[in-house]
Amino acid sequence: MKKKGVLAVVSGFSGAGKGTLMKALLQAHPDQYALSISATTRLPRAGEEHGREYFFVSREEFEGMIREGALIEHACYVGNYYGTPRDYVSEQMESGKDVILEIEIQGALKVKERFPDALLLFVTPPSAAELENRLRGRGTESDEVVCSRLKRAVEESEYMENYDYILINDNLDTCVREMHELIQAQHLRTGGSREWINRIRQELRCL
Amino acid sequence: MKKKGVLAVVSGFSGAGKGTLMKALLQAHPDQYALSISATTRLPRAGEEHGREYFFVSREEFEGMIREGALIEHACYVGNYYGTPRDYVSEQMESGKDVILEIEIQGALKVKERFPDALLLFVTPPSAAELENRLRGRGTESDEVVCSRLKRAVEESEYMENYDYILINDNLDTCVREMHELIQAQHLRTGGSREWINRIRQELRCL
Repeated sequence: MKKKGVLAVVSGFSGAGKGTLMKALLQAHPDQYALSISATTRLPRAGEEHGREYFFVSREEFEGMIREGALIEHACYVGNYYGTPRDYVSEQMESGKDVILEIEIQGALKVKERFPDALLLFVTPPSAAELENRLRGRGTESDEVVCSRLKRAVEESEYMENYDYILINDNLDTCVREMHELIQAQHLRTGGSREWINRIRQELRCL
Repeated sequence: MKKKGVLAVVSGFSGAGKGTLMKALLQAHPDQYALSISATTRLPRAGEEHGREYFFVSREEFEGMIREGALIEHACYVGNYYGTPRDYVSEQMESGKDVILEIEIQGALKVKERFPDALLLFVTPPSAAELENRLRGRGTESDEVVCSRLKRAVEESEYMENYDYILINDNLDTCVREMHELIQAQHLRTGGSREWINRIRQELRCL
């Protein structure tokens, strides 16, 4: 029986290392995972490419996608829209790939409402001090930006219980392995095995 | 921070290979797991030892344990009592060991009510035909016993959705690895990480 892919949603504090983690996971298992690319109305940063980091679209285009139901979820964050195109996700899951959405908490909770079998993972550094270190260590952000990220982390920490698992990103290799195991385990979840359960139930009755 | 052990409940069809699976898991990770030993009023079979397969007790003793609240769960099955002594389970979990209860469905559901963080695993062969093969293959059971086990499997299959995960025991090594990964993943469940979540929340507020 061909297995449908799992939908995994990854959120976490800015500075938790989600980007690096995703990259390492996809490199380790290139045939297993597909990373969903979000659409956004924010401007590309230096080095970002349309169709790689994001689909960069205008506000008009984005609102068109909302109207057409072309997005699984969308949210507004610091004045810009972000959303997950539906078609790519469905196609990849149908083909058996596990699809990962790296999205904000608002969007994650909406995905869980619509797809109760989705797996919600929250990535965090091992401590608040370490989060601050990492944010400052980037050296690319002003004090003001670091402060606003930390303030946001306080707010975000209120939603951690809505996630299925907390992933403590202390050691990259360990964290990648744990993430992989958690997503693979989801294939065995009874919620995702309804068809299989019904089949063996039927078989047993017919013995 | 020292982690409390996970409580994992393993049920499954008679003939699914639970016994072999448990043995292999404990051999592979002797320091990680503790297998709970049930108390029962049924008579020992040839080769069974008091305190190894079961604690064999009289009906009077068993009913005393019920009255004293010394059992996490108990159930009656084919005219005999079976139950899980509370003290051993608590002690092992406090010491950081993951405790496995291999018990019937009735008992499993009672454990889940009392310990919502418990992980419920259901072990099944890959198909009903394979279950029948394994039951007949033992060669130790009469046709009548095989039939009654299969009939029981039909009933038990109605409860599979109450379990968190379905473990298909097709290949022993794969199944042992999956079981180990699922139980270890439970350590990262947000339900089991409440203390940790509260700590980082507090830390973030104090930055």
